[in-house]
Amino acid sequence: MTGKIRIGIAGYGNLGRGAELAVQQNRDMELIAVFTRRDPKLINVNTSTTKVLPLAQAEKMINEIDVMILCSGSAKDLPQQGPYLAQMFNTVDSFDTHAKIPEYFEAVDKAAQKGKKTGIISIGWDPGLFSLQRMLADAVLPQGKEYTFWGRGVSQGHSDAIRKVPGVKYGVQYTIPKEDAVARVRKGETPELSARDKHLRQCFVVAEEGADKDKIAAAIKSMPNYFAEYETHVFFITEEQFKQDHVKMPHGGFVLRNGVTGIKQEHKQLMEFSLKLESNPEFTASVLVAYARAAYRLQQEGQYGAKTIFDIPLAYISPRSPEDLRKEFL
Amino acid sequence: MTGKIRIGIAGYGNLGRGAELAVQQNRDMELIAVFTRRDPKLINVNTSTTKVLPLAQAEKMINEIDVMILCSGSAKDLPQQGPYLAQMFNTVDSFDTHAKIPEYFEAVDKAAQKGKKTGIISIGWDPGLFSLQRMLADAVLPQGKEYTFWGRGVSQGHSDAIRKVPGVKYGVQYTIPKEDAVARVRKGETPELSARDKHLRQCFVVAEEGADKDKIAAAIKSMPNYFAEYETHVFFITEEQFKQDHVKMPHGGFVLRNGVTGIKQEHKQLMEFSLKLESNPEFTASVLVAYARAAYRLQQEGQYGAKTIFDIPLAYISPRSPEDLRKEFL
Repeated sequence: MTGKIRIGIAGYGNLGRGAELAVQQNRDMELIAVFTRRDPKLINVNTSTTKVLPLAQAEKMINEIDVMILCSGSAKDLPQQGPYLAQMFNTVDSFDTHAKIPEYFEAVDKAAQKGKKTGIISIGWDPGLFSLQRMLADAVLPQGKEYTFWGRGVSQGHSDAIRKVPGVKYGVQYTIPKEDAVARVRKGETPELSARDKHLRQCFVVAEEGADKDKIAAAIKSMPNYFAEYETHVFFITEEQFKQDHVKMPHGGFVLRNGVTGIKQEHKQLMEFSLKLESNPEFTASVLVAYARAAYRLQQEGQYGAKTIFDIPLAYISPRSPEDLRKEFL
Repeated sequence: MTGKIRIGIAGYGNLGRGAELAVQQNRDMELIAVFTRRDPKLINVNTSTTKVLPLAQAEKMINEIDVMILCSGSAKDLPQQGPYLAQMFNTVDSFDTHAKIPEYFEAVDKAAQKGKKTGIISIGWDPGLFSLQRMLADAVLPQGKEYTFWGRGVSQGHSDAIRKVPGVKYGVQYTIPKEDAVARVRKGETPELSARDKHLRQCFVVAEEGADKDKIAAAIKSMPNYFAEYETHVFFITEEQFKQDHVKMPHGGFVLRNGVTGIKQEHKQLMEFSLKLESNPEFTASVLVAYARAAYRLQQEGQYGAKTIFDIPLAYISPRSPEDLRKEFL
């Protein structure tokens, strides 16, 4: 490789800002432009050499950018933007609407094949690194049972749901894995665990003045799909407490697999992968940026179309040479 | 794929027996033959349909076997057997003499290229899965520090060293990660840790009748390279205790990476992978068998030569289809 890998970022929210910071940690990359649907004048990026452009002008930058990192949401934006941009650029995204992955994969694949580009979908930590660990553990220990626990961390979807309850000024929800459930799996047990058995939900709420707190708590706890099926705790705090303690975005979780081997399947074998993240968007963006390197290399080799984390040799995400990897990491 | 992947196992010690059991857990494989340098009549395999043949006759089985799993030792056997067999068969091995990996890689690569075969080297958990996790974490969190801890588990090399001390009848050595060191790293600290800071060595010894136990303990504790540099504890036990509690081969360990992200590198991000294994050889063999599938597929695609765990898309080790992987594991 002669020059640096030229990166574009589409969408400049928490994830996009995290991607900008992650690019700065990688010397073989440079951030050419951030694309936004907002007024570019209102966007302040950290890197003075980086342009801020309207997303609608992305196609003018086809020859300036090697990989576009898609940092917008899965619900509404990526289903359109993913295939649209994959026709013009190599892409990496964090598409996480699980039920729609097959459909999204097909759409990105079609677009990327057409443009002779490579589009890597559903990258991050879940989907992403957790998917990789689940798959790896399943292949190594075919006789076994897998458990994924999330947290302790902020769930954006559940926090949004709290904020829609009348009388709520600010709200945040932490998903917390139940320690006794994790401990049982770590001990080698393979229990059947319901969603309620695995996680509890902790809500911190700032009520509007004069609001009925009992009513708010009851409304949250009875909300179907989000809270009704779980053990949910609601705590009321002051606005000051909220701004001091609850504006960060920590997250994490565990992927565990309990397998057995032996003539009588008598030996327990436990594989575990865990993350403890002080900033969920910055970590997710760091994974996206590493896979941007892979998208560039795969396309250079003529491996066009949509890819997932399962399809990519790990060496492709590292800036190091194969010799160096064998020497330093094997 | 029409038929099953036809497996051979070269070497029938603990690892070879583990590979036989692992093949039985994978429905897309069948074990055709075990190759040994001992008298085949003295080998009892678990599978009635499996032949036991002299290793010297391996070349007669070229057309009967798709992948040969090499289950002999790295010190003396693999440097010869690896390149020799890689010319005739797709191979997977657990070569773990770290300093000699570049040389071994070249030798297997040359042989496999010549025979249009694929040879995957240094598979298992360390080297192997731990290597993969170290590499992955380094690529995702370039600003960070990595720690590998091993244990609690039996170290074959250290146990052998104990057994060579005069007066020792039986002996086993457990490598134990120091809890305070692991705890510091898990808390997000990035200390400089010496070998002694990271692990302690626990030896269980059955002394011969009339032997001087103090002398044995002193001889063990002062042994350079093996014990002198470590905190070493020696416990004398009876033969009965030994046979009851110390004939299993548990092992495990942790790969941790403490990284930082953020404008001021202010967010700590911890990635951890850990294994807790009741049978080290059976687990190692399970990894080898999963990668045997990859060796077969890579060779079918014309990807000849030596490969490491960094070079192989994870999907290649799974019996599941890409669609199934995306649906079930992403």
